[in-house]
Amino acid sequence: MATPHENTDAPETPQAAAPDHPLAGDPVFDLHVGGKLETVSTVSLAGAEELSMAYTPGVARVCTAIAEDPSMTQHYTWVPNVVAVVTDGTAVLGLGDIGPAAAMPVMEGKAVLFKQFGGVDAVPICLDTTDTDEIIETVARLAPSFGGINLEDISAPRCFEIEDRLKERLDIPVFHDDQHGTAVVALAALKNALRLTGRTPAETRVVISGAGAAGVAVARILLEAGITDLAVTDRKGVLSSDRDDLTPIKRVVAELTADTTGRSGTLADVLVGADVYIGVSGGTVPEEHVARMADDAIIFGLANPTPEVLPEVAHRHARVVATGRSDFPNQINNVLAFPGIFRGAFDVRATAITEGMKLAAADALAALVGDRLAEDYIIPSPFDDRVGPAVSAAVAEAARRDGVARR
Amino acid sequence: MATPHENTDAPETPQAAAPDHPLAGDPVFDLHVGGKLETVSTVSLAGAEELSMAYTPGVARVCTAIAEDPSMTQHYTWVPNVVAVVTDGTAVLGLGDIGPAAAMPVMEGKAVLFKQFGGVDAVPICLDTTDTDEIIETVARLAPSFGGINLEDISAPRCFEIEDRLKERLDIPVFHDDQHGTAVVALAALKNALRLTGRTPAETRVVISGAGAAGVAVARILLEAGITDLAVTDRKGVLSSDRDDLTPIKRVVAELTADTTGRSGTLADVLVGADVYIGVSGGTVPEEHVARMADDAIIFGLANPTPEVLPEVAHRHARVVATGRSDFPNQINNVLAFPGIFRGAFDVRATAITEGMKLAAADALAALVGDRLAEDYIIPSPFDDRVGPAVSAAVAEAARRDGVARR
Repeated sequence: MATPHENTDAPETPQAAAPDHPLAGDPVFDLHVGGKLETVSTVSLAGAEELSMAYTPGVARVCTAIAEDPSMTQHYTWVPNVVAVVTDGTAVLGLGDIGPAAAMPVMEGKAVLFKQFGGVDAVPICLDTTDTDEIIETVARLAPSFGGINLEDISAPRCFEIEDRLKERLDIPVFHDDQHGTAVVALAALKNALRLTGRTPAETRVVISGAGAAGVAVARILLEAGITDLAVTDRKGVLSSDRDDLTPIKRVVAELTADTTGRSGTLADVLVGADVYIGVSGGTVPEEHVARMADDAIIFGLANPTPEVLPEVAHRHARVVATGRSDFPNQINNVLAFPGIFRGAFDVRATAITEGMKLAAADALAALVGDRLAEDYIIPSPFDDRVGPAVSAAVAEAARRDGVARR
Repeated sequence: MATPHENTDAPETPQAAAPDHPLAGDPVFDLHVGGKLETVSTVSLAGAEELSMAYTPGVARVCTAIAEDPSMTQHYTWVPNVVAVVTDGTAVLGLGDIGPAAAMPVMEGKAVLFKQFGGVDAVPICLDTTDTDEIIETVARLAPSFGGINLEDISAPRCFEIEDRLKERLDIPVFHDDQHGTAVVALAALKNALRLTGRTPAETRVVISGAGAAGVAVARILLEAGITDLAVTDRKGVLSSDRDDLTPIKRVVAELTADTTGRSGTLADVLVGADVYIGVSGGTVPEEHVARMADDAIIFGLANPTPEVLPEVAHRHARVVATGRSDFPNQINNVLAFPGIFRGAFDVRATAITEGMKLAAADALAALVGDRLAEDYIIPSPFDDRVGPAVSAAVAEAARRDGVARR
């Protein structure tokens, strides 16, 4: 028998007893042997009496109490503290459509981050279907088992419809992190960058390249946060209402931004005089285009691992530079948002995650920088232990304000 | 912010910090506050370097390795050690169709037992559908996330079709515990009871009352184990081929047992002169019927919480008595089987749980009693720590013998 994970006070790390593995000696693979997650009992089952309380016959009374009053689920099961991290493996990191099995290490990692940074239990669910209706049906059928649904690495444009329909259908938080996690953290960083450079949202001209999950969500949250001059580009240029090649979601973005600016042309065209560039597209923006931005420009190149504008290039033309990478200052990292957002939602048993809760999360994140604001410090570190409590408290308060809190 | 479950070496019990709850002071409900399960990281994420290995960018290499060679899943994810405990809440304990939400405390308890007695990680999944096709589709779509599927508390006759079709479709173990867990432990106990009373299977006449999940599975495993005189009854009497009111699965049982005995009539009729009675039906068997069994009779009343024949009644007419209860000797408890069966299957990466693996589990369980065999000791205690290792070793060996082991 292989050494099982014993349920002791100090869980064994499976690595310790792991057999040889095909890529032994590579630190990343050594770390991954046996996976990164385990389930652990929170109750003792030392003898027959405890077994008869945690399991039959005692447990039957708990089941009956829930059958008679479903709200008892909130007290006597793990459901209100556990999120399903759901993917179909179609848009994993920068790797693209690698399928559900290969997506698992990312989903396990996400589950680990949920617990470490938010105290949220999380179960990775990699689905063997990429059909929109099937994903929706499957998640809806799983819903009694979870307090919330974190959608992850599902490719656009399906991700938009899947999230929208699940939000309509379920009375628990549904959150597509690639959209909203990125949007919340980018907004927080931008708020501080504007403060640093003495701008207000209403007088700031923003260009976003990339109209996938992250680009669309960043565009939406910036408009909600008061940005009034915004152009979003895909490979063919600015999303504008006169284009006849737009997907439904891109058409929505074109209409939202047409109301504010009506700009058109290529990325190069709209970068001329722009105050802010946010890249969520991958690829590279030529230096001569970045060079035409406004004075005190702000450049966020969020593609991983290679930012759209490398920091050394960006710094020649911008005052504030951020990336998605941990090895440069100002890391726009979703882990600053999703654990605290779900923690806050769970703490008040929220039925949804509203726009107000996302904006509150961004405000709370931005506020943590405080007086230390500087070109190389517009967003806190993921290891700043004030982040989770600050985000969760702000999100819980916003949930109450928005009328989605159940306590 | 509520106190999260911190990922420390000694996980907090959520009970400790739990707020007041509606049924505070009741020990069973006190124990259930916050549920009985949590997810815990098996890796440390103390700083940016570890984060960059367990999550982006390092994790991308693990994903790529799995995308190129799916067998890498077995080494670098938690998948091969985690079972989904799946129910639709239609046949929960003796409570019946209480729905998925109310079933959760039982599924959490099952998950706790999987870990404690088999070192198997387990995730409770309560489905919001009772449609056979939908359950099958849903579980099949979840399959990339799990190393095995434990079906639980799904009512007959749907449970038979669901298990059969999932076994055909998936290349991981699928096991309906209400059927096979009960069958394995009952067979183990019966083997020892026959040894104690000097019988061989071929000369033993057995009556089973109840043709639900457990009754059908017990009947099948007894036939496989060499019992040749077997009658199975439902409320209308013996399942016999001349009845025109049988469901498809009962018809199968009627045909299997007709080949061996051809008995018909009521439960009372077939108990006359029977050596063994196994109750998996609920209800009560009148004492005058039990009184007509053979000398040195064997009575297993497995209904919970009230056995079909109470031990004090059974002992007046039988030499060996077993129940499903922990407060009498000879407890036929599924926990003796399912953790070790999955542990053994997982240890050799079995693609299925075969009949041979179940029979091997029963043999291993029965053998643990050894020389201590007595009227009040025909089956080990769930807290006998030899059980898990013995069952898993026997199951792993049988998997190799049956050609379903992948290592």
